[in-house]
Order: sequence, then C-alpha cells, then structure tokens
Amino acid sequence: MKITKPTLIVDRDKVRVNIRRICQKVRDSQGSIRFRPHFKTHQSAEIGAMFREEGINAITVSSLDMAYDFAQNGWRDMTVALLVNPLEIQRINDLAAIEGMDLGLLVDSEHTARFLEQNLKHNVKVWLKIDTGYHRTGLEWSRKEDALAAARAIHLAPNLQLMGLLTHSGHSYDTTSTEDVKQVYSDTVNKMNRFKVYLVGKGLPADEMAISVGDTPTCGVLDSFYGIDEIRCGNFVYYDVIQLYLGACREDEIAAAIFCPVIGIYPHREELVVHCGAVHLSKDYVRGENGKNVYGLVALPGTGGKMWGSTVDDTYVKSVSQEHGIIKTTRVFAGRVKIGDILAVLPAHSCLAANLMKESSIIE
Amino acid sequence: MKITKPTLIVDRDKVRVNIRRICQKVRDSQGSIRFRPHFKTHQSAEIGAMFREEGINAITVSSLDMAYDFAQNGWRDMTVALLVNPLEIQRINDLAAIEGMDLGLLVDSEHTARFLEQNLKHNVKVWLKIDTGYHRTGLEWSRKEDALAAARAIHLAPNLQLMGLLTHSGHSYDTTSTEDVKQVYSDTVNKMNRFKVYLVGKGLPADEMAISVGDTPTCGVLDSFYGIDEIRCGNFVYYDVIQLYLGACREDEIAAAIFCPVIGIYPHREELVVHCGAVHLSKDYVRGENGKNVYGLVALPGTGGKMWGSTVDDTYVKSVSQEHGIIKTTRVFAGRVKIGDILAVLPAHSCLAANLMKESSIIE
Repeated sequence: MKITKPTLIVDRDKVRVNIRRICQKVRDSQGSIRFRPHFKTHQSAEIGAMFREEGINAITVSSLDMAYDFAQNGWRDMTVALLVNPLEIQRINDLAAIEGMDLGLLVDSEHTARFLEQNLKHNVKVWLKIDTGYHRTGLEWSRKEDALAAARAIHLAPNLQLMGLLTHSGHSYDTTSTEDVKQVYSDTVNKMNRFKVYLVGKGLPADEMAISVGDTPTCGVLDSFYGIDEIRCGNFVYYDVIQLYLGACREDEIAAAIFCPVIGIYPHREELVVHCGAVHLSKDYVRGENGKNVYGLVALPGTGGKMWGSTVDDTYVKSVSQEHGIIKTTRVFAGRVKIGDILAVLPAHSCLAANLMKESSIIE
Repeated sequence: MKITKPTLIVDRDKVRVNIRRICQKVRDSQGSIRFRPHFKTHQSAEIGAMFREEGINAITVSSLDMAYDFAQNGWRDMTVALLVNPLEIQRINDLAAIEGMDLGLLVDSEHTARFLEQNLKHNVKVWLKIDTGYHRTGLEWSRKEDALAAARAIHLAPNLQLMGLLTHSGHSYDTTSTEDVKQVYSDTVNKMNRFKVYLVGKGLPADEMAISVGDTPTCGVLDSFYGIDEIRCGNFVYYDVIQLYLGACREDEIAAAIFCPVIGIYPHREELVVHCGAVHLSKDYVRGENGKNVYGLVALPGTGGKMWGSTVDDTYVKSVSQEHGIIKTTRVFAGRVKIGDILAVLPAHSCLAANLMKESSIIE
C-alpha cells in the first residue's frame, strides 16, 4: 500500500502483543482482578475484536457517543468513565434500554445520584468517583461525608446498583520516574481503601465497595497489581512518547505512527517540515531531555517485516501548526531526506492523535 | 434549540460583521489589494457563502482535502497554502482538471518546481514561498540564490504561471503588543519587497512578482494595509482568546464558543469541570496574565438577542484532558453554577476547535 498523505498506521502484531501482555499481568496479579480496558485510545471495532479474542467482555468508554459506537459492535458491559451529564438522560435511558446492556455510570455527588434515581427508566450500575490526587473530578478525603451521602443515596435507590469506588490517578503522568509511578499506585490503593473502610464502617455493604483504578503509566510500570478489584487502563494498546518517557513502555512497543510526507527541507536550520500538524498529531507534547517540547519522535518506514525502524537520533517534532509539523534534526539526516519521502512520526499522545486520525487510519 | 452536549455555536451576525469589517479594511487600503481569505478556520460551506455575498471569489485553503471540499461548493479560485507534496500529484491533477478551476500552489524549491513542470497535466498558478521570520517553510534571504533558481524554473515552465512571493508571518503570534504586531507587518513587507527587487533585478518580470501575506493578528491590528498585493488571513471570522490577548480583536467580536455541560463542581478548589476537553477545544492555549495556561474563557449563555454574555471574571479553562476541561473560577461563581448547567467556552484557538467540532456545530 502506498501512503501519499498523513495516515495513522497501526501495527496489528504489536497491538496484539501489548494487549496480551497486560491481560497476562492482570491474571498474574493478587486476587481476582477484572480487566475493563479503556477503549478511548483506539475507538476501533477491529481492535475491540482483538480484546474479545483475549476473553475481554467488559470495557470502559469516555463518552456516550463512544458507548453508542461500541454498542453497535456488540459490546454490552460498559462503564462510561465521565461523570453523568443530566442533560443527556434521554440518551442514557436509550442506551440502557438496549437488550442485554449492562451499563455503568459515574457520579460524585448525592445530587446526581438522586437525579438518576428519579429519571432512569432501567437499572444501571453506579460507581462513586473518588479523587486520589489528580484533582479533576471525584470526591477527596476532605469530602468523605459527601461521599457517604452519595454512596447511601446510590445504595438505597432501587434502580441503582452501587458498584464501589472508582478513580483515575492521572497524576501518574506528572511523575518523572518509574519509582514515582509505583508510588502513585501505592498511594492510590491506600486512599481508596481508606474510603472503603470508612464507608463500610458507616454501614455500606462491603460487597458494594469494589475498587476500580485506571491509568496507563501504572499499567505499564507495575509488574502486577494489588489492593484493587478492577483496572481500566487503555493507552497501552498503542503507547506513545509520553509513556516512553515515563518508562511505561519500550520504544519498540509503540504500535501507532503517523506516516506523513516531507514537504520542506532546511538543512541550514537542521529542520524538516512534514504534512503532519495539530489536526493530525494534536498539540499535546512531552518535555524532552533538553527541556524542549517533543510533539513526536521520528522513524523511517520499515523494511522487511518491520513497519517502521528505530527512532532517528537527535530528531523530533519540535512544533506543530494546523497542518505543518517542524522536525528538528541533524544536518546529516536533513541531507538524507528528500521532498516527498515518507517519515513515521510516533505521537506524543496516541489517544488524541488516533481520535484526530479516525478517518485516516490503517491497521496492518 | 436545547444544547445537551458539547456543541460549537457560531454567532452568524458576529461572523458577518467580522467579514465585512476586514473586507472594508482591504478596500480602504493603499493600492489594489486582493482579499483571498483563508477558509481553514471555518471549513464551512455556509460561512463560505457569506464571503461570496461580500464579493469574495478567491480563497485560501490549507490542504487538498479542504480544496476538494470547497470545490464541491463551487469555489474555483483557490490557493492551497501548503507546500506541494509530490506524492499527491494525482489528486492535484484531478483538482486542476475540474472545469473552470484556477488553482494556486506553493513551492519553495527548484526541485518541486521542476517536478510540477514535468508532472502537471493542466496549467496552474505557482507562488514562491518566502520565510520572513516564522521559520516554518519558505526561503530566507540567506537562500536568495535558491529563490532565484526556483523563480526562474517556475517562470520558464510553460504549464506554470509564476504569481509572485507568498509568506505567512506566523511569528506575529509570538508578539505581546499591537505595536509588535505592526512591526512584524512592516518587517514582512520590507523583506518581501527586498526579495522582489532582487528577483526583478535578475530578470524576473515585475508583473509576476505579486506579494501575498496572511496572518490574522496583522489583519486585526492594522487599520489598513500597504506594500502588498494580496492578503490571506482567515481566523478573524471567529477570532479567539489568542487574538483577544494579542489585541487583534475585542471580546465581543469572538464569534464561536463551545457550549458544554457542567459535570462537576468543586467550590473548595474553586473549580468546575465541564464536558469539554482536548477532543473539543484542542490542547492549544495562550499564556494568561498570571502566567497560567488559558485553554478558554468562560461565559454564560446569553439572554435576549445575545448568544452569550461577557466572560466571567477570574474564570478560565486551566487544563484539558481527552473529554474533560477544568475551569478555575471563584468560590462565588462555583456556588452559582449547578450540575447540568451549560457554559459557553471561548476557545484559545478557534481554528483547531472548529476543526474538531466540525460534526457538532450550529450556526445561529
């Protein structure tokens, strides 16, 4: 197949290995942990099917739109990992009405729990969102009375099944070493169990107090999991440069790259320009060794069985505008490349790149 | 109309005023300047039609995909403001083959000029891309011999019509005052004319040496234009917080906002969370007064004739993840808002937000 314009190429074999590795890690962990992978990274029916082959039947999605998409592909056990938006109650009811649907929702207030009790036409599962330090959504320990009120409201509502406590320790992305990532995990487990003990002590049934966590750095860095009942990571299907720099994956585990044409060559600036900009890669970046922003790393398309080679030394996407990416490189590499060559850009953040490239992706 | 999920709302009346103001400014400028607005911001047939009503028939697009979209809407005079990608020669030929098509392309090397000469099946217009300081694509003054070689190759090719010199002074976005923006414009005009004088001195015909510039800060800040033949700005249809902070527009001229539901309220953190993340706003931001990153400003949906009100004091989107936006605000405002309320977020960068929200936009 000939690539002529920006195209997301997904390496099917790498994805399969990445999926199997995490599935195995979950099976090897202490206790009986459910793996509920997040599908927001790939948003792909075909990659969804690869999870099914590994025995996965419960998934996480990040919006109702995505839930509807995967419902169309036959998925029936889904947690929508975004706090309930009461304005979308009609769509929630329609989703819950699909035959066999086992729908999980998130709340972090008694208010929304009561809203669901009054407005849902079908039984759903409900998780109480806890904030263990990321400070996006969820209840912190200082709000434990609010957590108790919300948990009680869910527990007592006849149409809501209290599942337990759910968190996303997104602050694991702010760490700079694998030890720090492990510390975030350990700290998360401690905080979640502290909430659980408190709520059980207040009379909530222990079997309605499962603990669900999910972030890919943890998933990649830990050898096995403990102290939880469910894990929901998802970025590991593709990984990306953010995960690489966190130590959560190896470079050769990164399974998605944007293949893009070189349109400008500037050896005196030690720069190239590719047709691969913010509408392809997104504007997400990671801080590189030299303190510079890295929007992506660069490899040459592979030969033989490889879809792309190792990343080129001292070469990275240093900035993006709408359609353009500027690659900082060496004079030597700039001299080797020609206008119209295709380069493989490993994205800083594969979830956002894959979302942007949905219509221009090839799984090979 | 009831908004229930993230939706880009475009204020038609503001867009019309923004278009008319720039059209008038171009007409009021010295000499006979062609206005060739960039359509990458809105990518909308309907807004395209509003330009037509103002007498505009020449446009700029940033990719072949976009060129095909607007060709379908009847546009026939288009500059594709992205350096030619030789791998897409088939699509360029197909585009140029459309009846009545008047296609303009960009090159910054003799190599690509010769490639076009040999591979184009139809006559096209060609601009030589000049780098006046943005350092993305184009030839700098230190490469004036390369510019001469490329210009000669275009001039001599029977199927290429040399139009002149084209630049994008994107470094106007790095300024911090309207005086700096004016300085970038003046500097751009000087550099472009220096190139023109050099090339005409080397025998290139002066009537093949039009000067085309385009960036919205300049477009917004200058009272009138001088020293150019064509201007290609485009962001002014919607403007955004980046333009606001540059002094290129007033707040009430911003014509596009993402209406989004509040899903989390955290008064003790003085924060709200909305369903409006990187897949809606993009991850572009602008540095705010306090040195913080601002991904968007926040207003309440309007009453009466207004689509939204003035921005809320001390309130801005401080971070975004895939689906979530965290709004930093005051305890007072956090106390006024309820889960399920709709807020209007004025994006930092409207081009990227509008691109992401293409399928979820309403022009009212």
